[in-house]
Amino acid sequence: MEFSTYKIVIIGAGNVATQLCLALKKSKHTIVQVYSKHKSSAGILAKSLKCDFTNQPENIDTSADIYIIAVNDDSIIEVVKHLRLIDKIVIHTSGSVDMNILAPSSKNIGVFYPLQTFSKNNKVNFKIIPICIEANNNATFRVLNSLAKSVSNKVQKINSEQRKTIHLAAVFANNFCNHLYAIASDILESANVSFDILKPLIEETSKKIKNSSPVETQTGPAIRDDKKTMSSHLKMLSQKKKYQQLYNLISKSIIDFSKKKKQ
Amino acid sequence: MEFSTYKIVIIGAGNVATQLCLALKKSKHTIVQVYSKHKSSAGILAKSLKCDFTNQPENIDTSADIYIIAVNDDSIIEVVKHLRLIDKIVIHTSGSVDMNILAPSSKNIGVFYPLQTFSKNNKVNFKIIPICIEANNNATFRVLNSLAKSVSNKVQKINSEQRKTIHLAAVFANNFCNHLYAIASDILESANVSFDILKPLIEETSKKIKNSSPVETQTGPAIRDDKKTMSSHLKMLSQKKKYQQLYNLISKSIIDFSKKKKQ
Repeated sequence: MEFSTYKIVIIGAGNVATQLCLALKKSKHTIVQVYSKHKSSAGILAKSLKCDFTNQPENIDTSADIYIIAVNDDSIIEVVKHLRLIDKIVIHTSGSVDMNILAPSSKNIGVFYPLQTFSKNNKVNFKIIPICIEANNNATFRVLNSLAKSVSNKVQKINSEQRKTIHLAAVFANNFCNHLYAIASDILESANVSFDILKPLIEETSKKIKNSSPVETQTGPAIRDDKKTMSSHLKMLSQKKKYQQLYNLISKSIIDFSKKKKQ
Repeated sequence: MEFSTYKIVIIGAGNVATQLCLALKKSKHTIVQVYSKHKSSAGILAKSLKCDFTNQPENIDTSADIYIIAVNDDSIIEVVKHLRLIDKIVIHTSGSVDMNILAPSSKNIGVFYPLQTFSKNNKVNFKIIPICIEANNNATFRVLNSLAKSVSNKVQKINSEQRKTIHLAAVFANNFCNHLYAIASDILESANVSFDILKPLIEETSKKIKNSSPVETQTGPAIRDDKKTMSSHLKMLSQKKKYQQLYNLISKSIIDFSKKKKQ
């Protein structure tokens, strides 16, 4: 399938901006300029994209088709103050910020939220990343749909309310799981065991839910109602009250789920 | 490297027993018999291993070298009552049960704990599974070491105390993470969004910690101290008090970790 190609200004030079621009460039779009208030970050990204860059909002190129704001949630409103683009398309990449925050910048606004965790240096396969898109009019939606489909096979139309719910669910599945890994690592350290020992288990845990629902794949002392093991675990955590609280709360929640399932 | 091969009786016919026997057979050991109190489970596993089976403890074959008890933690003590094997090797595969529970069954006892989550039908690559071994004498240790190395490249000598700590850490990294997936799925359901949308994110989250510590890879509103997003998330969870409690507790724990890191 052939897609239209667009001239794009990227606003931001962090992890999302970097990975998204690399994918867009690969799909033959033209990144005309990188803007970031941090001159050196803008310069580094612009160099890898072989394009112009600026850290002066008044120097943002006004000849592009699409302006992608990929900055921290709190900074979006600051950026919008500087953008008066009238009939260009202005979009942001955030999971939790309402589309309408962009209204002062243009009459054509939208959201392009790639549901993934990005690092600057870890290459990601954009083709399998779900992209949630939304726009304030049909013409803008068609452009975003074409842009998104040029980089990913998993494009979905998602409104602002749904997107916020997806972002919340992602906090549980990504940020909170990662923190549980950190707790596991801390617990192992107390027994002088390397965190490496858990890595195959962590990988398999994430793979198991590919073809089964996580409620079906639940294992462990809580789902077996194995009180002996749970009380021995709580005893082992007696010096770490926060972990004990978490252990209790998550175990109770597992037991609740299993009761609901049986009903 | 050449390994000795052994004659083995497997006690239990669940997920661990099944996957372990398949790996042992592949490494040229002989499974002489499957024992399970559930005749049909014993029969199914024995059929796939092409060996004898029984559900009568008094009929357990006494001619093997090694007896592997791979049953639920609570059932180990029941099984031990029936085993009087004097100079055979008797081991269990549990993460949380002390080795000495096996003492009545033989003078040669040990533990063979494969740190992985198993399903009966999901094939696993045993070579990369960490196996924690322990024995009550050197001769038994040597046999277990040889047995473990014949199926896995990641064999570690781990004492009972360390093993219990590893098991506790695994509960956080595996059982509790899986439950967070279930919560995420439940949250998405309320917005009519399929859990599939989170799968690439979940996979990437588990991959990120392969080369970085989970403390380094932490992202999300809590680590950024993004109070606006956190309070909006808590508001969205107002109908689900348990999720709200969990959100609060895990977020606080993430903030604590980041403070400790900065110190």
